[in-house]
Amino acid sequence: MRMYDIIMNKRNGDALTKEEIDFFIEGYTKGEIPDYQASALMMAIYFKGMNEEETLNLTIAMENSGEKLDLSAIKGIKVDKHSTGGVGDKTSLVVTPMVAACGVPVGKMSGRGLGHTGGTTDKLESFKGFNTSISTEEFINNVNTVGLSIMGQTADIAPADKKLYALRDVTATVDNMSLIASSIMSKKLAAGADAIVIDVKTGSGAFMKTEEDSFALAREMVKIGNNAGRKCVAIISDMDEPLGYAVGNILEVKEAIDTLNGKGPEDFFELCLTFGSQMLILGGAAENEKAAREKLYKVIDDKSALNKFAELVKAQGGDEKPVFDTELFPKADIIEEILSEKEGYVRHIECEEIGLCSLLLGGGREKKDDVIDPTVGLVLKKKVGDYVKRGDVLCVMHANDRDKFEAAKKRFLAAYSFGDTAPGEKHIIVGKVE
Amino acid sequence: MRMYDIIMNKRNGDALTKEEIDFFIEGYTKGEIPDYQASALMMAIYFKGMNEEETLNLTIAMENSGEKLDLSAIKGIKVDKHSTGGVGDKTSLVVTPMVAACGVPVGKMSGRGLGHTGGTTDKLESFKGFNTSISTEEFINNVNTVGLSIMGQTADIAPADKKLYALRDVTATVDNMSLIASSIMSKKLAAGADAIVIDVKTGSGAFMKTEEDSFALAREMVKIGNNAGRKCVAIISDMDEPLGYAVGNILEVKEAIDTLNGKGPEDFFELCLTFGSQMLILGGAAENEKAAREKLYKVIDDKSALNKFAELVKAQGGDEKPVFDTELFPKADIIEEILSEKEGYVRHIECEEIGLCSLLLGGGREKKDDVIDPTVGLVLKKKVGDYVKRGDVLCVMHANDRDKFEAAKKRFLAAYSFGDTAPGEKHIIVGKVE
Repeated sequence: MRMYDIIMNKRNGDALTKEEIDFFIEGYTKGEIPDYQASALMMAIYFKGMNEEETLNLTIAMENSGEKLDLSAIKGIKVDKHSTGGVGDKTSLVVTPMVAACGVPVGKMSGRGLGHTGGTTDKLESFKGFNTSISTEEFINNVNTVGLSIMGQTADIAPADKKLYALRDVTATVDNMSLIASSIMSKKLAAGADAIVIDVKTGSGAFMKTEEDSFALAREMVKIGNNAGRKCVAIISDMDEPLGYAVGNILEVKEAIDTLNGKGPEDFFELCLTFGSQMLILGGAAENEKAAREKLYKVIDDKSALNKFAELVKAQGGDEKPVFDTELFPKADIIEEILSEKEGYVRHIECEEIGLCSLLLGGGREKKDDVIDPTVGLVLKKKVGDYVKRGDVLCVMHANDRDKFEAAKKRFLAAYSFGDTAPGEKHIIVGKVE
Repeated sequence: MRMYDIIMNKRNGDALTKEEIDFFIEGYTKGEIPDYQASALMMAIYFKGMNEEETLNLTIAMENSGEKLDLSAIKGIKVDKHSTGGVGDKTSLVVTPMVAACGVPVGKMSGRGLGHTGGTTDKLESFKGFNTSISTEEFINNVNTVGLSIMGQTADIAPADKKLYALRDVTATVDNMSLIASSIMSKKLAAGADAIVIDVKTGSGAFMKTEEDSFALAREMVKIGNNAGRKCVAIISDMDEPLGYAVGNILEVKEAIDTLNGKGPEDFFELCLTFGSQMLILGGAAENEKAAREKLYKVIDDKSALNKFAELVKAQGGDEKPVFDTELFPKADIIEEILSEKEGYVRHIECEEIGLCSLLLGGGREKKDDVIDPTVGLVLKKKVGDYVKRGDVLCVMHANDRDKFEAAKKRFLAAYSFGDTAPGEKHIIVGKVE
């Protein structure tokens, strides 16, 4: 078998066989197939696509390219959750303890933030001492004792995907549904859960800007998951404005704790209930959405979800006291209100720009090894549909550097669009694919 | 400017600007743009094509990537000839001395053979001492004194093309008319002639297998040449069976000498007259085809073309005596007739297979640094349309190794197809683009 022929077959529009895909992924992972042949193949796939079978085979080949977590030592149906990433997305911080408090074991592998989107492990590291680099044994042990563990993605999960994604990123071959779906799913499959609930974000702050693309990606991922023998549900949710009000690591953790206390933003809590319900249903702990929601409301009301979150923090070496008193978190030096210079209904917030404001303040990473400042970020006071008068507070910004503050402020103000009439109402949940 | 954006623009179907193409070719030649981005761009061009302007700009950028021959020290209109390569193609050996004998200066840069096709410089090296690695000064001096010089392509002619072609060759991105045309023309433009006559071979032994593709390539090249300010004519000629009868270096030189003596194969001589006429017309030495042919017949009849060939050989350090007595050339140890095992009209000869027989015998190169055996090859005795009885001689094979002889014999016999009826007549000249 020759890589040349594999490129030519795809270029000519032929479907690749399982053997061809395995040959490519194995050779590429080992460095036997050079980048320049891989990028030519990626571009051919961009133009000619892959069918359902090819996409599954590529996913499985990448899943098999490295370590695969064996979660069989965990009792029960293990449910994982994945988000395609957004601004202010602290959903996992609320959903996973809720679900665990309902008795469904959750062992979640999370990524770090890059660019305008944040990562769950970064947010958890807001707790002093919290360790996301635990071993697989500790991880499994924590799920069995606490019912919940969240670890950072190890380097050896789907290394083929890691290498291929870096190549696609510099050769304009990212934008293909089959390639995007197989990239995400290869890591999820290798992470070993029995069932997966996927949050496909859609809108200006998401990777997928249009609903059409978001549904297409959701369908691709659910197909892969089901074909690989995992239960799989995808929810398409709005990311046209930040999720909730807080953007920035500690600020988001605070909002998550508020939500676990039953005092979270309405849209965000609705999203948590939707995901929690799906996870309870897939995990066999609820028969339907109604029953699931009842259970979830109960673990909020009786604080058992909040306590589960504190258990998670403690079990992974973190100081859990701020869970019960968020004033214990460190604060930024500069905390100032940003006032509106305009008047009218908020028609639109450039969501990606809000994420970039937090990044600019030091709350995110431009490059992989940047160090994050957990205290900075912003808390919105006005969102889409709100009426704003000149001088009203649009947000409270948290910064540790005056120059960065000013740069972020300028960017923040430019992200808001106003109009004379209110925009049509939007719902946080856009759709579901299963 | 970023290479990423150039790839994405082409991927999206946009035409590349001159600045983008220059940025790519300059960066790629210097090694600043990596192969994996170049191959992704080549695949995007494969799918999205290039318009006339882009193709010209790519050609010029590659022409400018290295040394450009300045032939202004040569008096008169300098005419170059190029062939896309075929089996038994010894045309340049006959046409260039004919044209030079008619007073049109010919300074030709020739390639070496690779794969199933031969190269003019390899054939000339059949003459003991013949040096194709002469300096540009010697080259120009020879054209001014002899009227004719043929040198090997220097490494620094269009290095961008050399690098890019090697990449396309292993990434299934060769088959695009604009890329093929710009690759050939970048070298021809850098070689400095005022006018170029191109032989586009078509058929089973050619790079272009169909007439449609051959005409398309011819049109692309003529457009580039004219847009670059050079006079340019392309002749599409048949390569569905070997040209003439001889395949192999010394054997082809002998056939060329026979032709210069007025005793060449009819189809091959017709091709030489066609190209010679075009070169005389472009070179301003003849008003039309009729006048040109009269001049060409004359230099054959009075042996001045043959003498010009001998002058070329002598001027570049070769022993010219075999030009007047071809028995002086060394011979292979094994010279045996191959007899037909079948009967009927020759319907088809797999031309590429005949080229590979010669390669197999040691007459060509599989890899760039293989050493050629000039004595081996074969001389056909039956071509398409001939009636063959069992036991008739199909060819005389020249070899220096019994195992190679047997392997080539087997391959040779399998290359012939027979039928009960004669095939329709074909003409060596298929068409012309100017």
